[in-house]
Amino acid sequence: MRRLAVYPGSFDPPTLGHLDVVERAARLFDEVIVAVGVNRSKASFMTVDDRQASLREACAHLDNVQVASFEGLLIEYATRAGATAIVRGLRATADFEYEFQMAMVNRRLRPEVETVFFMTHWEKSYVSSSIVREVALLGGDYSGLVPDAVGERIAAIVRARTS
Amino acid sequence: MRRLAVYPGSFDPPTLGHLDVVERAARLFDEVIVAVGVNRSKASFMTVDDRQASLREACAHLDNVQVASFEGLLIEYATRAGATAIVRGLRATADFEYEFQMAMVNRRLRPEVETVFFMTHWEKSYVSSSIVREVALLGGDYSGLVPDAVGERIAAIVRARTS
Amino acid sequence: MRRLAVYPGSFDPPTLGHLDVVERAARLFDEVIVAVGVNRSKASFMTVDDRQASLREACAHLDNVQVASFEGLLIEYATRAGATAIVRGLRATADFEYEFQMAMVNRRLRPEVETVFFMTHWEKSYVSSSIVREVALLGGDYSGLVPDAVGERIAAIVRARTS
Amino acid sequence: MRRLAVYPGSFDPPTLGHLDVVERAARLFDEVIVAVGVNRSKASFMTVDDRQASLREACAHLDNVQVASFEGLLIEYATRAGATAIVRGLRATADFEYEFQMAMVNRRLRPEVETVFFMTHWEKSYVSSSIVREVALLGGDYSGLVPDAVGERIAAIVRARTS
Amino acid sequence: MRRLAVYPGSFDPPTLGHLDVVERAARLFDEVIVAVGVNRSKASFMTVDDRQASLREACAHLDNVQVASFEGLLIEYATRAGATAIVRGLRATADFEYEFQMAMVNRRLRPEVETVFFMTHWEKSYVSSSIVREVALLGGDYSGLVPDAVGERIAAIVRARTS
Amino acid sequence: MRRLAVYPGSFDPPTLGHLDVVERAARLFDEVIVAVGVNRSKASFMTVDDRQASLREACAHLDNVQVASFEGLLIEYATRAGATAIVRGLRATADFEYEFQMAMVNRRLRPEVETVFFMTHWEKSYVSSSIVREVALLGGDYSGLVPDAVGERIAAIVRARTS
Repeated sequence: MRRLAVYPGSFDPPTLGHLDVVERAARLFDEVIVAVGVNRSKASFMTVDDRQASLREACAHLDNVQVASFEGLLIEYATRAGATAIVRGLRATADFEYEFQMAMVNRRLRPEVETVFFMTHWEKSYVSSSIVREVALLGGDYSGLVPDAVGERIAAIVRARTS
Repeated sequence: MRRLAVYPGSFDPPTLGHLDVVERAARLFDEVIVAVGVNRSKASFMTVDDRQASLREACAHLDNVQVASFEGLLIEYATRAGATAIVRGLRATADFEYEFQMAMVNRRLRPEVETVFFMTHWEKSYVSSSIVREVALLGGDYSGLVPDAVGERIAAIVRARTS
Repeated sequence: MRRLAVYPGSFDPPTLGHLDVVERAARLFDEVIVAVGVNRSKASFMTVDDRQASLREACAHLDNVQVASFEGLLIEYATRAGATAIVRGLRATADFEYEFQMAMVNRRLRPEVETVFFMTHWEKSYVSSSIVREVALLGGDYSGLVPDAVGERIAAIVRARTS
Repeated sequence: MRRLAVYPGSFDPPTLGHLDVVERAARLFDEVIVAVGVNRSKASFMTVDDRQASLREACAHLDNVQVASFEGLLIEYATRAGATAIVRGLRATADFEYEFQMAMVNRRLRPEVETVFFMTHWEKSYVSSSIVREVALLGGDYSGLVPDAVGERIAAIVRARTS
Repeated sequence: MRRLAVYPGSFDPPTLGHLDVVERAARLFDEVIVAVGVNRSKASFMTVDDRQASLREACAHLDNVQVASFEGLLIEYATRAGATAIVRGLRATADFEYEFQMAMVNRRLRPEVETVFFMTHWEKSYVSSSIVREVALLGGDYSGLVPDAVGERIAAIVRARTS
Repeated sequence: MRRLAVYPGSFDPPTLGHLDVVERAARLFDEVIVAVGVNRSKASFMTVDDRQASLREACAHLDNVQVASFEGLLIEYATRAGATAIVRGLRATADFEYEFQMAMVNRRLRPEVETVFFMTHWEKSYVSSSIVREVALLGGDYSGLVPDAVGERIAAIVRARTS
């Protein structure tokens, strides 16, 4: 039996914390889909295409990892994809409660899909996408918070916005 | 590659919450060892043998689950056993911080062994071993909090202590 | 002395968790007013009328429960209504801190009105109005999360929005 | 229908935070029993008799409040006493999770007895019995943390222990 | 060596909790700059000028405190100002995690600027700017939540908005 | 005016997290006393002398840091020492609530002594003295969790206990 995990998120932008979770999931599952959630009603920093492209570059060294995007309810996407599990990273107590609620609702909707959690690595646990966006848009140094490939795309976005 | 998970705990006594985690781990890993931690410096409610026996009965329907015990540092036991991952259940914010610290220390000691977390099922998330012990020793009704096999052993312990 | 409790909320939509709190308050107080807070500056999912109508249906079996709506400061509404207490449900640590702050401010403004809390029942504690909205708008199955009467109204709203 | 509440605790010693909860419960219920839990396996600071006596003095101004003690499971004591509700004070997030678990277990054991919570008043929320004991035994000033009647008993205990 | 602290915030409006932190920082540092962060993309309650003016009035009794405003990344502002430390108030667990993340990012960007925290005084810990705004706009009594000078400005704003 | 800070703890053993806090306090205050709290009623891992000696070695590079020990109430010791502030490290939400309570009690007892907090550095935030003890006594590798000087003393203690 091949076990497939879906790792969903908005990845706007992807951070070193996200990459850490992908690498760990890739060792535990036969296949991992990093799935960018599309939310048409929310303004984004990076386009969905950009997010997918930079995730593909950042995960190029991982044979069993694919990048995709999805709309609609995550648990239905994961079911259609044939996932054994949904993977999530936990960074802080505040994450815990939202994640607990979603895991319970998803379990009720589709008991055959498991949700598993990794603790984000300590050196990366203070890095959220929103802090990266804030630092980048205010002209701070975000290298070392995001994978290199992502850094170049952020630089282009910041240049475009501030010129 | 076969993936083996170790699910450690004191299981004093095992609860329906523990059993929930075992069943979910058994679907995600090729093999699961439920490992009773032996702590000679702490008074226990059930003997280690009793805990192992009742876990074996409660897990009899799960082909790929074994029950064992260990002394010393968990991460060294898991490494010797050839584990890919350590499995833990999360019930509440208070669990989160201790588990986060242990996962970080274990990752530092043995980066090749992953720690993964499940959220305990909502109907069982309020059941801890210590609450079962308290209810049982004060003469309350603990059926529905523990697997049936465990209930009988608890009844015997309570009778022995209060006679 | 008759004791009256006000149970305020946005109830957008009402969930089984809300109904659980109403039923418990109805046993503790002589009279309970379920009070839908009107917030003209925030887009809503259900109209205030719809929320009141579905609460009335869901509470039809409770003799001492009325449904109303209010604008402005809750504590002033509760005082005008002659309330002995404001009732709130707690689901998670994250609720706790906001509720603590509001209870303290309300106590300062009107020390004669008490705030009391119930813990939401475990089977319903993972159900928030925002998760119901998310599941419903993305086409998921929300039955079992809301009272039956509410489910029909949600279905109509979803049909209207997606057609 | 007369509504009776039980307010259980170890009250070792009673603090101004406890008294705050008693006063608020006394306005919401027809009768309140402040119930000192007896735990023979734990060393105590004040005797059970002393705790009851000082609670009686501190609550002398509240007509509908009685002081009692109990052994065994709280929920069974509350049921025998004919309680409608158990009353608890919440001070902090850390309290929340333990209280949530106990409320769920108690609801499962006796669904007819409700548990209700008050937020402890902000000026008193930092005062726990254990901090009072620590301050008192190390020679600090604990007046203003406990009711006056309690302060005199603590002074006697500290004199006896340190002479 | 003179030690300068920057105390940043949106102060919209300043509260008694903010003033408490300023007073404590003024005893620990040789000089304190209270720095109003300007965020052009967010609608505000008070203008930046109003916030600075009312902070100046409220801090008039503190010789070593200045009021300023800044745009862009806080840590760069603090570095340019020659700050030894950034000062923050903590009120609740929810504050803790955001503050922890920002302190870690700031330490990575500028290790020579320290971040130090004060616990907000208990009588003032339930007062946030957002609760003051809510109470004020809904016609409640906000005196005792804000410094006197601020109260007059809020009254003018509420009159202007509701007339 | 010279500003003196007291950094109290049990330091049993001192960790790299403690050292991180000392170094940061040494930059903010004119003088820092690292004060080992003596608790005769609790079994310890290291003797008080050993803890002081290893702190002295670990802080040898910091000119304005002294090591001392104290018995009794911390706030009284800090007052006698002429401290402007007590310094504490925060690692996690769980720390927060205890520290908040103690800071409030200390402020009430001695308003002239401030309590200030640092967030422990992320690489060291998962290291508590109790985890170091557990790892060491179970034969794990604790280098990298404690200062070098402390490591040698722990090795001697472990050899003595297990031989």
